[in-house]
Amino acid sequence: MNNTRILKVELGARSYPIRIGRSIAGLDTAFPESAGRSLRVVTDSNVEPLYLEALLGALSLTRDQVYVVPAGEASKTWDSAGKVLDWLLESRLSRDGCLIALGGGVIGDLTGFVASIYQRGIDFIQIPTTLLAQVDSSVGGKTGVNHARGKNLIGAFHQPISVVADTDTLATLPKRELLAGLAEVIKYGMLADGLLFEWLESNLDRILSLNPNSLAEIIERCCAIKARIVGLDERETGSGPRALLNLGHTFGHAIETYTGYTEWLHGEAVATGLVLAADLSARHGWITEAVAARCTALIARAGLPVAPPKGMTAEHFRDLMGLDKKVKAGKLRLILLRGLGDAVLSSDFEQDLLDETLAAACRTTS
Amino acid sequence: MNNTRILKVELGARSYPIRIGRSIAGLDTAFPESAGRSLRVVTDSNVEPLYLEALLGALSLTRDQVYVVPAGEASKTWDSAGKVLDWLLESRLSRDGCLIALGGGVIGDLTGFVASIYQRGIDFIQIPTTLLAQVDSSVGGKTGVNHARGKNLIGAFHQPISVVADTDTLATLPKRELLAGLAEVIKYGMLADGLLFEWLESNLDRILSLNPNSLAEIIERCCAIKARIVGLDERETGSGPRALLNLGHTFGHAIETYTGYTEWLHGEAVATGLVLAADLSARHGWITEAVAARCTALIARAGLPVAPPKGMTAEHFRDLMGLDKKVKAGKLRLILLRGLGDAVLSSDFEQDLLDETLAAACRTTS
Repeated sequence: MNNTRILKVELGARSYPIRIGRSIAGLDTAFPESAGRSLRVVTDSNVEPLYLEALLGALSLTRDQVYVVPAGEASKTWDSAGKVLDWLLESRLSRDGCLIALGGGVIGDLTGFVASIYQRGIDFIQIPTTLLAQVDSSVGGKTGVNHARGKNLIGAFHQPISVVADTDTLATLPKRELLAGLAEVIKYGMLADGLLFEWLESNLDRILSLNPNSLAEIIERCCAIKARIVGLDERETGSGPRALLNLGHTFGHAIETYTGYTEWLHGEAVATGLVLAADLSARHGWITEAVAARCTALIARAGLPVAPPKGMTAEHFRDLMGLDKKVKAGKLRLILLRGLGDAVLSSDFEQDLLDETLAAACRTTS
Repeated sequence: MNNTRILKVELGARSYPIRIGRSIAGLDTAFPESAGRSLRVVTDSNVEPLYLEALLGALSLTRDQVYVVPAGEASKTWDSAGKVLDWLLESRLSRDGCLIALGGGVIGDLTGFVASIYQRGIDFIQIPTTLLAQVDSSVGGKTGVNHARGKNLIGAFHQPISVVADTDTLATLPKRELLAGLAEVIKYGMLADGLLFEWLESNLDRILSLNPNSLAEIIERCCAIKARIVGLDERETGSGPRALLNLGHTFGHAIETYTGYTEWLHGEAVATGLVLAADLSARHGWITEAVAARCTALIARAGLPVAPPKGMTAEHFRDLMGLDKKVKAGKLRLILLRGLGDAVLSSDFEQDLLDETLAAACRTTS
């Protein structure tokens, strides 16, 4: 565990550590919380051949303590959760047992949800193996599954007892997935940490070449931001600070819905959403055009889309954003920037300027 | 709301009131917490024709805001929960909406579970219409569904925002169900309140004749006991005081499992379990034989079974109790009495005496 960085998410009795380092998912020392516990692992068919053996070795587990779901978003359903629950009961895991989620966001969300309702809630540990999960979804306790009517509509707030982020797992992550995770990293800089944003501008190439120290640095800084915000607003009260983590997401969800959640990765849609949020903020004069341009430039340099998909119009955006969860009491609320690293949730924006942002963006569709 | 008794369950930010009275399920004044909220009602096919109209009138709701499940334990499943969730999403209930559970324990547990996972948790109100639910299952936040491998194996701790116990609903409750609820009332006296036990000895006839004041009295006293214990141990930590609420339940679960959860009502099995727990306590000299005899006598006077079902042997009990959730680290723990109104969770009992209790009980099978 040399050079392992440890960060604490402060949530009173539900506080937990995040350990970040190289090849640590195969070290028993990364899992002090699971010592002496009855354990079960949930992973997917992509991650299984890559990292499962190391984990089983580190924790002295056997294959019959592992449940493998098919890789992909299609496994994040009510039916999948039911099957994992069936298996846990069949394998007689007791109420003081502990689940381990080995994989990306789908595995973390599914396993965390199952842990939240198995015998009215048991412990679980997150081992996120994608950048997106390491900087975002594995921290904060949001768990759940999708429904035909939308993503994450069924779920629970259930905090893990620890998170182990192994930067070496990013070596096998498809480049496109890495970049999608990077969109969320840029989001953290834009919404809460101008210095992180500048650091990204200076170090983007090192991140893209998977420099381990740079990866650990962004994971630690993003988790620190998320931990602080989650500590202030564990259950996302709506107008609380946790909503700010959705910077770019209202636009992004519209894009994901328009493209049927198949063509664009979540992070790609968020990337374009960040560009639109910055553009709209600049049109209000809340940030300068230069700052908005820096946001767009960094996102473009990261190889992420900065304009909506072909064929998507301002009208599509308006329709799809009207259905967004952030609509409260009839008035759309958006997360916008008052500065670089300073996001606000506001319904106090001009509809005309929103229309301008959408019109301009849709003229330059990707 | 004249003569409505109000009791508070103290759980910090999750505190809530219990309102107890006559015909109050049809009074809007019993539901101040739901004012101005978007509401949905879940009920069952037995309760629907009896009390739904009054509730809809009180809260100005329409039939399309109601979901009716078939009456009975068979509706307390993962699949049923999925169907209720589908309906809620179809009817577009938002995250700040509120569910109302109108019915007995099945409806309360199912609706509470659905509320705990709909959009990561929404508010719900309990309107228990059985004595069992009024004195026990509607208070304390235990929600869940059954699984082929056992009862309540999937669920969550999710507190209601209020409980409305209308004693008039007990008039339509089948006598056998009323008595089953009474078993839990006697349990409260035995485990925590000797004065309540004495009060029951003096007032049993008034309760059996459904005297409204006597019914309100036992509901209030039982809820007060449960509220105090839940306040000390919201999530049932295992060795915490909440386990004491399971007095008689380890024996009772063995009877329920033996009879396939079909012949005996839960309360009936608990009644016999209470007799066995008192007997075993007396054999240890922790309570006198006279006290144990009073327990048996009151349970018998209430028309409840005081001996195991025909054919069930001590060996059956030992087998089935070995699988009980109260087995921890290999050693069976039982809830026993140190006095009338003074229960303890203990693994410090003599196996020989347990065998004597079981042998004696199974000689006098009902």
